[in-house]
Amino acid sequence: MPEPHPNSQPKAVCLLSGGLDSSTCLALARSQGYACFALSFDYGQRHRVELDAAARVARSLGAVRHVIAQIDLRPIGHSALTGDLAVPKGRSPQDMAHGIPVTYVPARNTIFLSFALAWAEVLEAPNIFIGVNALDYSGYPDCRPEYIEAFERMAALATKAGVEGGFRIRIHTPLIRLSKAEIVRLGHGLHLDFSLTHSCYDPDPQGRPCGQCDSCLLRRKGFDEAGIADR
Amino acid sequence: MPEPHPNSQPKAVCLLSGGLDSSTCLALARSQGYACFALSFDYGQRHRVELDAAARVARSLGAVRHVIAQIDLRPIGHSALTGDLAVPKGRSPQDMAHGIPVTYVPARNTIFLSFALAWAEVLEAPNIFIGVNALDYSGYPDCRPEYIEAFERMAALATKAGVEGGFRIRIHTPLIRLSKAEIVRLGHGLHLDFSLTHSCYDPDPQGRPCGQCDSCLLRRKGFDEAGIADR
Repeated sequence: MPEPHPNSQPKAVCLLSGGLDSSTCLALARSQGYACFALSFDYGQRHRVELDAAARVARSLGAVRHVIAQIDLRPIGHSALTGDLAVPKGRSPQDMAHGIPVTYVPARNTIFLSFALAWAEVLEAPNIFIGVNALDYSGYPDCRPEYIEAFERMAALATKAGVEGGFRIRIHTPLIRLSKAEIVRLGHGLHLDFSLTHSCYDPDPQGRPCGQCDSCLLRRKGFDEAGIADR
Repeated sequence: MPEPHPNSQPKAVCLLSGGLDSSTCLALARSQGYACFALSFDYGQRHRVELDAAARVARSLGAVRHVIAQIDLRPIGHSALTGDLAVPKGRSPQDMAHGIPVTYVPARNTIFLSFALAWAEVLEAPNIFIGVNALDYSGYPDCRPEYIEAFERMAALATKAGVEGGFRIRIHTPLIRLSKAEIVRLGHGLHLDFSLTHSCYDPDPQGRPCGQCDSCLLRRKGFDEAGIADR
């Protein structure tokens, strides 16, 4: 069956880090018939392997376009992902569930969603997809449903479309209440090639995952619980 | 009388373009005793003279720090300020009051406020100042009070401080309901050196204002109505 022409599909801006969650989110948006405009950020993260993964995933899933926006959070922020703090290793799920981890980047999702909003307005795309998850990352304030709802309300007032009554931009968070195992099963069912994705906060110079950071441990636990092999 | 030590002053992140409004807003925050962290953006605007003006104003008003954040809106947006569209010239106030002008940059204030929010969180600053104005720029959706209130509500849910109950970040918009003439009088009363500021959307290569764009015309009208000379 031929695919419908992209012009007849509803447009969606899809935030894409190249990790398991955002890649599954993009696969889901594609499976639901959206013409996807993938958006990644080069924000001074320590490892570029993440951006390479995002490019591979966007291509593999048939995104209409993939843009990497350059932003530099270093002059105003600090965290293990952009600065000199050590990435914590070998933490238990209980440890991860308490408090806000050092890998939290201040207001990061707000900045990412703001750029997605700008692009959605230019594209006249009434949809934004973001693969946030409120379970595994319960310590991140900007992964919670009440935050996303507040952003959506703000976005309706921030844009031309909102003022001129064209359309209201909807923020889709299909993974927000799923466990990591459920996300793995979802991606598997959508035939996502997990080998293209990258999750590690602290890869070696060849881009291989460390296996011990929160992100590696959550990923392994998710695959184990789903009973699916992570190649 | 010696100034109080900056550590004893409440911290505020102040968005500063180097124009008349944001410079007056910074002068007001300083006069109210805030320790001000000025934030400007290099977002691919056509003229760099604006950033030079911001640096001069920040220094002159005694900002604790001035940071210019690099962001690149060009891959995702377009407008007269970042792209190839012509800046409109010689429009009447009536023309300016209708519709959303070509100089509108999609979601710009949302992006700027998101960065301000990130920096405020890092600095533990419970205040953000932004010199938006709902009268002269009635066509910009993200200059309206209801938008600012929605951003503030979202910000309370987006941050560590909001989740852990530390503090709620307040967005101050002291100019939002003032006319340009009232802003000029306010800046004058605060001894702001207007000659340091820059308003033009389309300066010549030497940085001199064109005198005919919306921003130049609004500035001239403001000074004329205030009965104050713009040197």
